Amino acid sequence: MTSISDERKRAQADINADLGFGSVVARDPHRLLNRDGTFNVRREGLPFFASLSTYHYLLTISWPKFLSFVGATYVAGNALFAFAYLLCGPQALTGGDAHRSAFATAFFFSVHTLATIGYGSITPNNLAANIVVTIEALAGLLGFAIVAGIVFARFARPMAQILFSDKAIIAPYRGITAFMFRIVNQKSNELVELSAKVMLARRKAESPNGEREFILLKLERERVSFFPLSWTIVHPIDEESPLREMTEEDLRECDTEFLVLLNGFDETFSQTVHTRSSYRGDEVVWGARFTSMFNPMRPDGALSVDVRKLHDIETL
Amino acid sequence: MTSISDERKRAQADINADLGFGSVVARDPHRLLNRDGTFNVRREGLPFFASLSTYHYLLTISWPKFLSFVGATYVAGNALFAFAYLLCGPQALTGGDAHRSAFATAFFFSVHTLATIGYGSITPNNLAANIVVTIEALAGLLGFAIVAGIVFARFARPMAQILFSDKAIIAPYRGITAFMFRIVNQKSNELVELSAKVMLARRKAESPNGEREFILLKLERERVSFFPLSWTIVHPIDEESPLREMTEEDLRECDTEFLVLLNGFDETFSQTVHTRSSYRGDEVVWGARFTSMFNPMRPDGALSVDVRKLHDIETL
Amino acid sequence: MTSISDERKRAQADINADLGFGSVVARDPHRLLNRDGTFNVRREGLPFFASLSTYHYLLTISWPKFLSFVGATYVAGNALFAFAYLLCGPQALTGGDAHRSAFATAFFFSVHTLATIGYGSITPNNLAANIVVTIEALAGLLGFAIVAGIVFARFARPMAQILFSDKAIIAPYRGITAFMFRIVNQKSNELVELSAKVMLARRKAESPNGEREFILLKLERERVSFFPLSWTIVHPIDEESPLREMTEEDLRECDTEFLVLLNGFDETFSQTVHTRSSYRGDEVVWGARFTSMFNPMRPDGALSVDVRKLHDIETL
Amino acid sequence: MTSISDERKRAQADINADLGFGSVVARDPHRLLNRDGTFNVRREGLPFFASLSTYHYLLTISWPKFLSFVGATYVAGNALFAFAYLLCGPQALTGGDAHRSAFATAFFFSVHTLATIGYGSITPNNLAANIVVTIEALAGLLGFAIVAGIVFARFARPMAQILFSDKAIIAPYRGITAFMFRIVNQKSNELVELSAKVMLARRKAESPNGEREFILLKLERERVSFFPLSWTIVHPIDEESPLREMTEEDLRECDTEFLVLLNGFDETFSQTVHTRSSYRGDEVVWGARFTSMFNPMRPDGALSVDVRKLHDIETL
Repeated sequence: MTSISDERKRAQADINADLGFGSVVARDPHRLLNRDGTFNVRREGLPFFASLSTYHYLLTISWPKFLSFVGATYVAGNALFAFAYLLCGPQALTGGDAHRSAFATAFFFSVHTLATIGYGSITPNNLAANIVVTIEALAGLLGFAIVAGIVFARFARPMAQILFSDKAIIAPYRGITAFMFRIVNQKSNELVELSAKVMLARRKAESPNGEREFILLKLERERVSFFPLSWTIVHPIDEESPLREMTEEDLRECDTEFLVLLNGFDETFSQTVHTRSSYRGDEVVWGARFTSMFNPMRPDGALSVDVRKLHDIETL
Repeated sequence: MTSISDERKRAQADINADLGFGSVVARDPHRLLNRDGTFNVRREGLPFFASLSTYHYLLTISWPKFLSFVGATYVAGNALFAFAYLLCGPQALTGGDAHRSAFATAFFFSVHTLATIGYGSITPNNLAANIVVTIEALAGLLGFAIVAGIVFARFARPMAQILFSDKAIIAPYRGITAFMFRIVNQKSNELVELSAKVMLARRKAESPNGEREFILLKLERERVSFFPLSWTIVHPIDEESPLREMTEEDLRECDTEFLVLLNGFDETFSQTVHTRSSYRGDEVVWGARFTSMFNPMRPDGALSVDVRKLHDIETL
Repeated sequence: MTSISDERKRAQADINADLGFGSVVARDPHRLLNRDGTFNVRREGLPFFASLSTYHYLLTISWPKFLSFVGATYVAGNALFAFAYLLCGPQALTGGDAHRSAFATAFFFSVHTLATIGYGSITPNNLAANIVVTIEALAGLLGFAIVAGIVFARFARPMAQILFSDKAIIAPYRGITAFMFRIVNQKSNELVELSAKVMLARRKAESPNGEREFILLKLERERVSFFPLSWTIVHPIDEESPLREMTEEDLRECDTEFLVLLNGFDETFSQTVHTRSSYRGDEVVWGARFTSMFNPMRPDGALSVDVRKLHDIETL
Repeated sequence: MTSISDERKRAQADINADLGFGSVVARDPHRLLNRDGTFNVRREGLPFFASLSTYHYLLTISWPKFLSFVGATYVAGNALFAFAYLLCGPQALTGGDAHRSAFATAFFFSVHTLATIGYGSITPNNLAANIVVTIEALAGLLGFAIVAGIVFARFARPMAQILFSDKAIIAPYRGITAFMFRIVNQKSNELVELSAKVMLARRKAESPNGEREFILLKLERERVSFFPLSWTIVHPIDEESPLREMTEEDLRECDTEFLVLLNGFDETFSQTVHTRSSYRGDEVVWGARFTSMFNPMRPDGALSVDVRKLHDIETL
């Protein structure tokens, strides 16, 4: 009875350490977390509208893509209503130039209406056209409300703002050796109460079918109250560290991946932000150190760091 | 003295476990929580405006219903203002077609005004009509502000995004038996720091008038840091489990209900989200297991799950 | 040395229990918290704009007041711009009825412009008027943006939604006596994870100059996961309760006040909400009990409470 | 081995206390935190768009600056489109006064279009002009959406609302001596659950190159539930205080700085707010006390404080 219970306890420990990737993921030799913090997994078969998730898409694409999308929708919408006005008969619209095509007249009338400009140089002239105007005016207002809402939401959501050093290093540190990487805030927003968690994922040495294990690494420091400069996150490789006896080759051969989780409070948006990244074994440099990011003291007495130096390392 | 104190302690324990449903609810043989997480209770006699709660209603109805509501309000508002213009006298409005009814002219003029188009093909022509225009313009702006606000709020509020397996199962698991169900994130938003609580509600065996008791079930794992795939939530039926000696028949006869509470952090909206659901005794399948949701390895090395397989179980 | 240290420890305990009202407040014989949860204190001498705090004002006044404010500002703004157009000279505006006053023409032209209707029945006709139009158009857009923002903020902020019973009671309860009051959620929003704190404030018996003391009351239950029905909050008057030997007269004579603090999570707005209220000694009824708020079982099996019965008590 | 481990433990303690400024900052003789809570550091070399951060800029500048920015953008945008209309040829626009310059006509036509007024007194007359109108209408709508979004975000973000006393004091307090300063809420918003942390930063006495150390000061009270009045934050200088044996001169010579961190919950915005400030050694007054901020009792029984007296101290 005891042995079964013990086995379950060990199983339990494994389960709690896997961060939610599960045992199947644990057999995957590929990267679990991409450098930009997205998960290297797919969910398929989602209900059409759920996976489409237009709102999420419009929220997360780049500004040029977003503006192109809005522009294309605007032109398409006007073209659609232009056809509707053409269907209302030849007398539907009064005004516009004689030498312009009926479609062009209808299209520009639609622009005047959708944008609620209404110069009056072209006007609706029969019941059908007036009904289409009634519909288009509402469509314009709703469409604008939606665009305004998304624009605001794009502004209001906190963006990835923490930059990670390209490489992590393993090097002598305060008498022993340590695993280190550094981060900097690349936005002008202030982040406070930032905390870090680093997890080692590697193929178990003794496992026949190459299952992964997940081990939380003890950090020299897990939390900073302020984050005005850079922060070098340090895992000292002491007697208890799982990296204790690993060599550079071991790191690569075990499909090692260092999963990094950060969360902090963004003062500009008054919101909690979560950021993730990872380092694979081949993104760790042995026996190097980070060069200082500090600039010479400024005349006004303020300290300054040069963010461009974040990735700079020098071999010892 | 001691016995009274002990009795109170036991009463206390009962009180703290009932989640807020109270003792009266505890005598109700019906479902407490609906599958979609709403409570199976009603609050009556609320002050009229409080219970009406138009805003809450407009926030939570489906998009088609919402758009219909806005459309109907828009048409009704224009009709109302059309009557107001008619009351301003026959000379109130200039322009419009001679062969169109006065109401139609007034209605379309109202559209031009409420939507702030103002073609000028119909114009206000006396003091009364100009005053109505002044009011309608403000009404249009305020109405639009309200609609835009609700549209944005509809977008911004986190939606139910966790899908629960149709059935829970009770089956052999790691040497013993366990109660299990599984969940998946059906939106493209990422959820992190997801935690689960499962409560057993059942009619007390020894109770003459069938009062319910509420017992928190110990979970193999109560929290995942990431939720990129599916999560099977497991309650091992060990020596301490209240399900220890229950049979399939007991489960049904005791009006058993498994109340599930989840909360996590939605990264897209930077918001904490709460989700609830429940399984009744007749929604638990005995001696079955969930089939794997994983797809064959993709060429790009990413793992993928097929969400459509969430509900798939196979009899052992 | 020890006695000084002990004295400081006692002082410390007093300090931590006063909730932030401080010792001066502690000598005030009046109510500290009003029934609606506002503090019975004033901050004077605030910088003008800080104390004015138009935004906070517009956010918290009633809807009729808010709409009146917007309406009045709209009329005043149009009147202001009407004067500006009059100052642009007699030829500034073309169109409008000959039989209407110049001010009325200018006022309605301003409405057409501020609301961006622009019928074109009146048009700007000189440089000065066109410049005023340019300014008014921007003012209109900014003004509308501000109104829309406030309308949305009014919708989005969680409102006081917990209704407290008019009276608290002190009555026999589960073998001993208890202090009780009850609350109900009067909105259709769901509140979850609701927790309560009750503090007794009373004039110290032994104090010569009538200082108040603040004592946290132990509650039978401090937290409910769900709040779909009513919740009776109970402080059992056991051997350790500060109410242990108090009579109805003591309660009044010591200027007793029960300060209630609630906080929960509003699911509709995904926001934490804080609510406060208080009961004075003369708002406590002795030897009564709350009558049940439950309605007879509904045909659909759902439980229902009648919110109107919240305040109903019956003498034992 | 033990000595190395001990050394690392001491290093660890130092590291955890430095709040995130790091060891380089610790050698800086200047202020770390400015009085307004901003950090006295610079991050240079940020990617252009990241450091520009227009949104953050528009969110945090004063209202007059913001309105000027919007006004200038509006005028510039109209001028730009005016040039575009001029490029469309002499027949592009119909209407407008003969005696006005083509640019003025194009500029005011642009205003009519960008603001979606569309009087119709000037109308687009060829294909090119109509295409520019189509673009300008969209630009106007998007621009307005962005301005409205920023206006709302400016309103919605919690502002610095806690006022700190100009000076901190060190004076006799309850039998011993204490370091004290006081704060008041200068907005009409209520703050609740306010908590404080005070950190002493000073040059290490024994350090040859003048490194700073950071020590958390024990506060008499770290948290208030309510903050309706003023709050005097007190660090008693007892046997364990790092200020125990420091004189006024020591305070100045060691570049002492008291870093203050506050956070609370703003009820109006339902948001957590963080505030910071600092006192340098020369901003501490010895042997003085704060004068009472309380006004005489009001006729309505409410207490009131006079915020203007926040900074008032009197020498003992």
